[in-house]
Amino acid sequence: MKKKIALLPGDGIGKEVMEGAVDLLKSIAEHYHHEFDFEYGLIGGGAIDQTGDPLPDETLEICKASDAVLLGAVGGPKWDENPAELRPEKGLLKLRKELDLYANLRPVQAYESIADQSPLKAEILEGVDLLIVRELTGGLYFGKPSERSHHNGEESAVDTLFYNRNEIERIIETAFKLARERRKKVTSVDKANVLESSRMWREVAEEVASKYPDVELQHMLVDNAAMQLIRSPKQFDVIVTENMFGDILSDEASMLTGSLGMLPSASLSESSLHLYEPVHGSAPDIAGLNKANPVAMMLSVAMMLRHSFSLEEEANAIELAVKHVFESGKRTADLADKNHESLTTKAMVEEVKEAMADD
Amino acid sequence: MKKKIALLPGDGIGKEVMEGAVDLLKSIAEHYHHEFDFEYGLIGGGAIDQTGDPLPDETLEICKASDAVLLGAVGGPKWDENPAELRPEKGLLKLRKELDLYANLRPVQAYESIADQSPLKAEILEGVDLLIVRELTGGLYFGKPSERSHHNGEESAVDTLFYNRNEIERIIETAFKLARERRKKVTSVDKANVLESSRMWREVAEEVASKYPDVELQHMLVDNAAMQLIRSPKQFDVIVTENMFGDILSDEASMLTGSLGMLPSASLSESSLHLYEPVHGSAPDIAGLNKANPVAMMLSVAMMLRHSFSLEEEANAIELAVKHVFESGKRTADLADKNHESLTTKAMVEEVKEAMADD
Ligand SMILES: CC(C)[C@H](C(=O)O)[C@@H](O)C(=O)O
Ligand SMILES: CC(C)[C@H](C(=O)O)[C@@H](O)C(=O)O
Repeated sequence: MKKKIALLPGDGIGKEVMEGAVDLLKSIAEHYHHEFDFEYGLIGGGAIDQTGDPLPDETLEICKASDAVLLGAVGGPKWDENPAELRPEKGLLKLRKELDLYANLRPVQAYESIADQSPLKAEILEGVDLLIVRELTGGLYFGKPSERSHHNGEESAVDTLFYNRNEIERIIETAFKLARERRKKVTSVDKANVLESSRMWREVAEEVASKYPDVELQHMLVDNAAMQLIRSPKQFDVIVTENMFGDILSDEASMLTGSLGMLPSASLSESSLHLYEPVHGSAPDIAGLNKANPVAMMLSVAMMLRHSFSLEEEANAIELAVKHVFESGKRTADLADKNHESLTTKAMVEEVKEAMADD
Repeated sequence: MKKKIALLPGDGIGKEVMEGAVDLLKSIAEHYHHEFDFEYGLIGGGAIDQTGDPLPDETLEICKASDAVLLGAVGGPKWDENPAELRPEKGLLKLRKELDLYANLRPVQAYESIADQSPLKAEILEGVDLLIVRELTGGLYFGKPSERSHHNGEESAVDTLFYNRNEIERIIETAFKLARERRKKVTSVDKANVLESSRMWREVAEEVASKYPDVELQHMLVDNAAMQLIRSPKQFDVIVTENMFGDILSDEASMLTGSLGMLPSASLSESSLHLYEPVHGSAPDIAGLNKANPVAMMLSVAMMLRHSFSLEEEANAIELAVKHVFESGKRTADLADKNHESLTTKAMVEEVKEAMADD
């Protein structure tokens, strides 16, 4: 198979985990006889420094000319004080919008072998295997341009949470389709006792559910969901929710694995062009130290191989190798403790490659 | 001391825990020689059934003529399908707005003696003692009336997140004042990388902080906060945040205690009239079974005695008694397991009263 992959390393540890991804992809290409062509693009703080724009047109073109996009992470304190047009997240959010990446899939699996590093008790984690489906191109993130105004001398700020029916329909459909391949349960999270957008969300969820009689639909208020995710995460199969709730719940859910460095994601569009990125950010505090956990990125590569290229065998091989590496007691700094030596980013990638060769 | 207390039991277990509160208050009145006059008001589903209005004017008048308001919980499936004007939360939210209860204080303390019931590991919980200060009368809950509209045949819904500077200032001031009496650290939670209202929030937080040089200010993004609350809750002293983020984070934080039935709250206004209520809801599934945990309500009574009546000794006595009851191994159903007999609501109230007499 021959595929073109756009690589957007971004800032901070984004660059380091991207190197790991490339390394892994090269070894997969060799082993399974594929050809992956890589094209690098600028995004985020680095792009601002070099071009004055967090998402240069050229980067968008590189993405559009590729079969899949792999993203590292963007941002850092250096760019936090930028004027609005240059804010790093304008790069990321614009990219999501331009490629219409409306469905952000964030699977959360608890690995027994690293359960000791989760703040949660082992019996709570046992068997946790859930998928958060986050709406990614609507809601508060993309309402009417936010604004400041002055009335009678008082300053105020407003953001708008906007959804139309079609935006809700397609993300809920996506969740139901995914649930069908899993344990056939969808938990739709909203705040329908307060928000009009949530009430519409609930109506649409009911309508979509009627087309999937084999899948169970449950509604849950977001405050309750934030509690239930910790109280008994096993109850969840697929969670579908709007943009900001999904942002909050998925970071929270990372604690089921012990580290944000474990969570991959796929952002799907209606076209065949999808984007894959770790859930974690650019982690400026550990950037450049070769100690970032590359697993979230490697699992994102697995998601790309599966969803974009239908390379199921290769995807499974990565996931299995990661599991085996953890079972052998090897970990990066975010998961290490006095009983476990801590591996560098590069060493962790090597371990996964070796485990793939052995499996 | 002679005080008039408005009692709004509401629906479901709200009624049962309110009975416990009255019982407790009577015993305190006797023991410490106070006179508490109680006046009952209707709110929520029960108020709809009897008057057609979830917050009858009479209830508001009862509240305004009292020295403090004690609320149970409102809502239940029976009223979920009501037309908009009758929605139960219109009662609760309107009450908050009418009494200008802008500062919702939600303290979270982990009791070592019930740590076994938390999904979190004991070492994570050790010494957790944090206070969430939630803005309660602004944000998405009270933006321009939410609306549905139809454009080119497509339905859409919008909610608005609105804050003016004064609303943010007063809640942040409240947080700093409270932090001064505690461990002198304020974590302000926002989503300033995306929301304009959050950027204003951050600016105001900085301005207020400059008046409290003895208190440390830290900014944290809400997604990260949702993670850090579970990862290392000990790092927090006072958390201040807007309405909806506070709603989500405080329910999540309940897991640090093992049960939502443990969390009290105080809702303060700029006047001398404040409201106290457990964080939990009306729990229709266990309503009427005499098995609800009355501790959140009893701790809310303690907050009332302290904040509204300056009865520090009495407040401390309740808190200490609750602690002792848990230490003696007694628990309600939400916290019980095979090693602990489960007490009824009434029995739990009796235990706390007896422990107060013994202490
Ligand atoms: C950087 C930020 C805008 C982004 C988001 O909130 O979507 C990040 O937190 C994420 O989850 O990908
Ligand atoms: C019932 C609901 C409107 C309310 C809220 O979200 O404020 C509740 O969840 C709470 O936290 O008091």
